[in-house]
Amino acid sequence: MSQGTLLYAQSGGVTAVINATASAVITEARSKKIKVLAARNGILGALREELIDTSKESAASIAALAHTPGGAFGSCRYKLKSLDADRAKYERLLEVFKAHDVRWFLYNGGNDSADTALKVSQLAKEYGYPLTCVGVPKTIDNDLAVTDTCPGFGSAAKYTAISVREAALDVAAMAETSTRVFIYEAMGRHAGWLAAAAGLAGENAEDAPQIILLPERAYDEAKFLAKVKQVVAKVGFCVVVASEGIQTADGQFVADAGGATDSFGHTQLGGVASYLAGKVKAELGYKVHWTLPDYLQRSARHVASKTDWEQAQAVGKAAVQFALKGHNAVMPVIVRSSDAPYHWKIEAAPLSKIANHEKKMPAGFIRKDGFGITEKARRYLQPLIRGEAPLPYGRDGLPKYVTLKNVAVTKKLPAWEG
Amino acid sequence: MSQGTLLYAQSGGVTAVINATASAVITEARSKKIKVLAARNGILGALREELIDTSKESAASIAALAHTPGGAFGSCRYKLKSLDADRAKYERLLEVFKAHDVRWFLYNGGNDSADTALKVSQLAKEYGYPLTCVGVPKTIDNDLAVTDTCPGFGSAAKYTAISVREAALDVAAMAETSTRVFIYEAMGRHAGWLAAAAGLAGENAEDAPQIILLPERAYDEAKFLAKVKQVVAKVGFCVVVASEGIQTADGQFVADAGGATDSFGHTQLGGVASYLAGKVKAELGYKVHWTLPDYLQRSARHVASKTDWEQAQAVGKAAVQFALKGHNAVMPVIVRSSDAPYHWKIEAAPLSKIANHEKKMPAGFIRKDGFGITEKARRYLQPLIRGEAPLPYGRDGLPKYVTLKNVAVTKKLPAWEG
Repeated sequence: MSQGTLLYAQSGGVTAVINATASAVITEARSKKIKVLAARNGILGALREELIDTSKESAASIAALAHTPGGAFGSCRYKLKSLDADRAKYERLLEVFKAHDVRWFLYNGGNDSADTALKVSQLAKEYGYPLTCVGVPKTIDNDLAVTDTCPGFGSAAKYTAISVREAALDVAAMAETSTRVFIYEAMGRHAGWLAAAAGLAGENAEDAPQIILLPERAYDEAKFLAKVKQVVAKVGFCVVVASEGIQTADGQFVADAGGATDSFGHTQLGGVASYLAGKVKAELGYKVHWTLPDYLQRSARHVASKTDWEQAQAVGKAAVQFALKGHNAVMPVIVRSSDAPYHWKIEAAPLSKIANHEKKMPAGFIRKDGFGITEKARRYLQPLIRGEAPLPYGRDGLPKYVTLKNVAVTKKLPAWEG
Repeated sequence: MSQGTLLYAQSGGVTAVINATASAVITEARSKKIKVLAARNGILGALREELIDTSKESAASIAALAHTPGGAFGSCRYKLKSLDADRAKYERLLEVFKAHDVRWFLYNGGNDSADTALKVSQLAKEYGYPLTCVGVPKTIDNDLAVTDTCPGFGSAAKYTAISVREAALDVAAMAETSTRVFIYEAMGRHAGWLAAAAGLAGENAEDAPQIILLPERAYDEAKFLAKVKQVVAKVGFCVVVASEGIQTADGQFVADAGGATDSFGHTQLGGVASYLAGKVKAELGYKVHWTLPDYLQRSARHVASKTDWEQAQAVGKAAVQFALKGHNAVMPVIVRSSDAPYHWKIEAAPLSKIANHEKKMPAGFIRKDGFGITEKARRYLQPLIRGEAPLPYGRDGLPKYVTLKNVAVTKKLPAWEG
């Protein structure tokens, strides 16, 4: 008789360490003799009954998964609505779960995914199907409630701080006859965590980045340009880090990529750095360069934070342990007990406290002038980028990233008519 | 009696390893008891008599310089014209050199700088001033003649190949419901070396990047869009790497940043990826993301190539040795004797063969369809990104980059009226 299977799925934008979580989930489940299926392309694979048999992967591949960026089983942006509005989909999920004896469902994502996991757990209860649902935290946006930080953020934060420090050395060397102002566009729709992390690149107000623009503060163009001018006069150059989600006082995004929206209904942003660069050039006349790292910032496993990498694995391992103990509708969260030395542990938090919440930066993290971070923010952020996650390189000079076999299990149900 | 001083200056865009060259120059000169001055902001510092006394820096600082990106003494974009047109400036340089007993002048830059070093050597000869001028190669563009490769290129190439591979894993995981086409804009005005290096990220035609757009081939929009469509249909997604300098058949740059020109008279480019992304979205309807790494690609010391780093130091050391032996108007170049294993050595080449030349990619390096690199290109490029240059990190999770004291020597001449 089967003892049940565990279904793992990845959701939303992938990170440098979400596969480290996956690796830990599979490793922990294997140690408990539990079979792990992985949904191809997140919840979509569950709906379509496209399930990958992870037992076909070697121990070496699962170990290598821990240092491979991207989403090894495929992720998706696919938002399930309320139980009423999308009832047929939720019921289909339960059918698939039953067909494959899925008793534990681990959904690895952000607050939308926590919401989905919560609703699935509610429907299973309603139908009397014994299912334990666990959300597993992941997002470079660092905007999940309750948890101290979100796996994926620390590595993107480390990438950001290092890239800004390196580019600033470049700009400093060239400013006299070339670029005076350099603008770095960081991801972050509504919360400025990644842009804030760039603040770790410098130690005092004159170090780059001299200006950080956060969505938590209204963008005031006149004030911004005056500050750029002041910094260039004093330092000789100015490095600006702008969050993609900055808005004017009336709530307008400073720039968006043609106003497209993704399937979660979020506006697809982009172009803030380009906009700011144009303004600086036109209004102040400085030569300006800008960068849009885009996906590079969330996939840069080559410069991942060891702290983040360890936490990504810890939440994966804990998620399996919670699931097997029957802790339903919870998420393993990171609880900080000390900044320096940084002490943390994993605890279970109810998904209801996390689903659809969005954690913005506390006001106390933002400098009074709105253009930088405080010591308090620094104490919070600093441990998260600490340590270098190990990474094996091949003789070809490239990291040894693994590609899984991803063998699908045989379907047992009629095709989904979604 | 003074035995003469050596003047070192950095020119043009800085790289992840130009300071490794500087470190080797100073280390080698110190071992020969030769005093090294460094010009602040390249040739401008020489004209202004802003000279840094490198003997004030500790051995530890000079050692740390070898792993610090940017340009430690400042660089510049400042092009001297012909000896006739800019005679007063060249004569001023000689005055400064005489005032500080400069007998050896090392100019670390690209082909413009090689030209300047050559002209200075000619003027010194004309005036009977005993000066040995040595050009030291540096450019991420890899476009210097004679040398097998240019220090700075291998590290930018490694950054490019790794970043593209990582971003491709991200896109592959998300393509079903999110981004189908990802466009990476690589530096390179007229030569597509860096974009070509992205080809190392994949092994066969279906691996990302599936399309590379090089300035060596005319950009044909219909052909490009048809290829994107074909790749998406076959692979599910498409990663495009575009060189900033791509042009249409009639010689128009596909995009430029407002048509600004830098002080060398080169058009300041940018915006190719943005342009292509707009086209792909409008014509094919795919969701598209794009990145403009800009300075990040040339300052990313955190992912530098060990081969490149060793070559950067080797040319610095050889430059001092050539100078002290009186090899005038030469540049230490890298000579390859074997691809696999990669064997190289340093030889002296006349500056006249390098000044103002620009090495484009050989036709044999470009795939017949124009959208990728050949095996021949791969054999050339592969060794250049090999190995990981060591880098110490601090407890704060950031690389330990050094800031020099940069103490100026006392001026002996009237201010320059340039």
